[in-house]
Amino acid sequence: MSFENRIYNFAPGPATLPEEVLLEASHDILNWQKIGAGVMEVSHRSKAFMACYEKALSDITELMQIPSNYKVLFLQGGAMGQNAAIPMNLMGLGKVSSQADFLVSGVWSEKSAKEATKYGNARVVANTKNEGFTYVPDVSTWDLSSDSAYIHLCTNETVGGVEIHQLPNVGSVPIVADISSHMLSREMDVSQYGVLFGGIQKNIGPAGLTILVVREDLIGHAMPITPTIWDWKTQVTSDSMINTPPTFAIYFAGKVFEWIKKQGGVKAIEVTNIQKAKLLYDILDQSALYEGKVAKNNRSRMNVTFFLRDESLYEKFLQESQELGLIGLKGHKSVGGIRASIYNAMPLAGVKKLEEFLKDFERRA
Amino acid sequence: MSFENRIYNFAPGPATLPEEVLLEASHDILNWQKIGAGVMEVSHRSKAFMACYEKALSDITELMQIPSNYKVLFLQGGAMGQNAAIPMNLMGLGKVSSQADFLVSGVWSEKSAKEATKYGNARVVANTKNEGFTYVPDVSTWDLSSDSAYIHLCTNETVGGVEIHQLPNVGSVPIVADISSHMLSREMDVSQYGVLFGGIQKNIGPAGLTILVVREDLIGHAMPITPTIWDWKTQVTSDSMINTPPTFAIYFAGKVFEWIKKQGGVKAIEVTNIQKAKLLYDILDQSALYEGKVAKNNRSRMNVTFFLRDESLYEKFLQESQELGLIGLKGHKSVGGIRASIYNAMPLAGVKKLEEFLKDFERRA
Repeated sequence: MSFENRIYNFAPGPATLPEEVLLEASHDILNWQKIGAGVMEVSHRSKAFMACYEKALSDITELMQIPSNYKVLFLQGGAMGQNAAIPMNLMGLGKVSSQADFLVSGVWSEKSAKEATKYGNARVVANTKNEGFTYVPDVSTWDLSSDSAYIHLCTNETVGGVEIHQLPNVGSVPIVADISSHMLSREMDVSQYGVLFGGIQKNIGPAGLTILVVREDLIGHAMPITPTIWDWKTQVTSDSMINTPPTFAIYFAGKVFEWIKKQGGVKAIEVTNIQKAKLLYDILDQSALYEGKVAKNNRSRMNVTFFLRDESLYEKFLQESQELGLIGLKGHKSVGGIRASIYNAMPLAGVKKLEEFLKDFERRA
Repeated sequence: MSFENRIYNFAPGPATLPEEVLLEASHDILNWQKIGAGVMEVSHRSKAFMACYEKALSDITELMQIPSNYKVLFLQGGAMGQNAAIPMNLMGLGKVSSQADFLVSGVWSEKSAKEATKYGNARVVANTKNEGFTYVPDVSTWDLSSDSAYIHLCTNETVGGVEIHQLPNVGSVPIVADISSHMLSREMDVSQYGVLFGGIQKNIGPAGLTILVVREDLIGHAMPITPTIWDWKTQVTSDSMINTPPTFAIYFAGKVFEWIKKQGGVKAIEVTNIQKAKLLYDILDQSALYEGKVAKNNRSRMNVTFFLRDESLYEKFLQESQELGLIGLKGHKSVGGIRASIYNAMPLAGVKKLEEFLKDFERRA
């Protein structure tokens, strides 16, 4: 088994994964822990899998420094599933019945706000759509309501490449944050959040597992219509196994948690991520060809988005980069342009190769 | 890569998978179709994955002989997720608002009926719980309502080992069938059903993918509270990709569909499955030690359940079978006893080895 002709994959998710973990998985699919069966074939109730689940739980708790008054759930349905599940679990909590606040700073938080209207009043505190989702307005301008059950933020918008680096002070209302595309990429003070959640198919593993971290006092308030698999209280009391969990995705996530620990933990990963992002943003700042539209203080370290000032060059750009083994660079269809997703598992060498290509392409343009 | 000391895994799900497919997956995790990236890393919007998705769709349509007025969806959340999604999509359809019928013939249909009460009136047409979920009563005794939106059946109850071999005549109300644990194990006349659905972690692949086959006229009636990822109409118009689908599970299911075709299709698999089940049931019928409690005409070909008349022998039975490499035989905690799950991927040789052990154990008991 080997990685012949491995390319650098800048896709936004599913995305590149650590080679070391892929190699292990490639073996464990056939025979896991010398059980004589592959990891996908083993019962979720078996001792082997329960130990794997407990280890994954303990490692993510350590990596994110999750306080003891929080619970971690492994769920199905993606962040978009939680767009429905979160209102169903939380919207009844506020002073005013079924009301929550939403910052709309990109495609994903826009979807979250829309989904929540099915379950109550989704108040939009600020919306940057007319400005092309290129920045996060100062919190002093947000139309916050202290009556709301929570405020929803997408702290890294994958499509626009807009990241919230400093969590705004929103008062006493719990913050619910969609961290799908920067989970474990940087340190986060979990105690500042009510809920953190995200699909793992960007920074952690295969698509099909959603991780949710929730403060204990926010558990147990689900509306009667909440599907059992998304009723956080039920799942907390069932080790996230009220039905068969996506065992292979949990196994894989656990291996990635171990890999992050070997890299020195989230703090060390963050240092590398800052370095990787800087290489690309430095080019944008000096370029006559590439134009980054996101406000500097909201530039995402995970999804670097930019445009070519000469629109006729896109096809050539994408073709030449692909020929060099740099793939997945096409921007989201809703915005166009170029997007380089540089998650934890993207090696520095991959970013450097992209950096060189960017410079070379501009020289020749 | 090899299968050293491979055991025979009789677990009910996650369950044993075809060796040939595991070997392919073991390779494709590192480098898929010479792309230079593993199958889990490739974008769900890429040409490679879209072709893989289309092939899987076309193969299951062929294998199940799905008529052209049905749609196939690849969803998340398991069959238990659909226990909520199905009422949300269908319960508004009947003559009486929000009413559906349920046959409660085991643990799973009991859960389905309970979940549906969140969304409307779940009428129980018959319930065999007091008889230990050991048979399906004749349809003439069911308290059917022609006003109901649909009738829900679990056509193979994994825990009890109760299978419906002949679909009962329930009149004009659409049949919704949970086929999780016998999907693709036998021929089914899809045109007799309104909806067929199931998690794939028994007969097809890793946990985390739900397949739903639905007649077109049943699409488009979702209640306003239906989560977007489970709104069948939305998913039909989005190729099941309204959000990132579980790509690896879809890839794997597709490989298993190809494997079934190589075995001669569902018809040929069914012949082997009948043969495998007969080996075990023949022992139960002749044994003084083993007691099968399920009515003969409802014996599951997939989950063979039985009890030891001498209760003191369970520990010895499970220990000795495990030492021989026969694992996963312990019955579900709610019923106890022994359960041998013999899905499509369980080789005849595995069943023969279990048959020999059963005979030998009884001789020595």
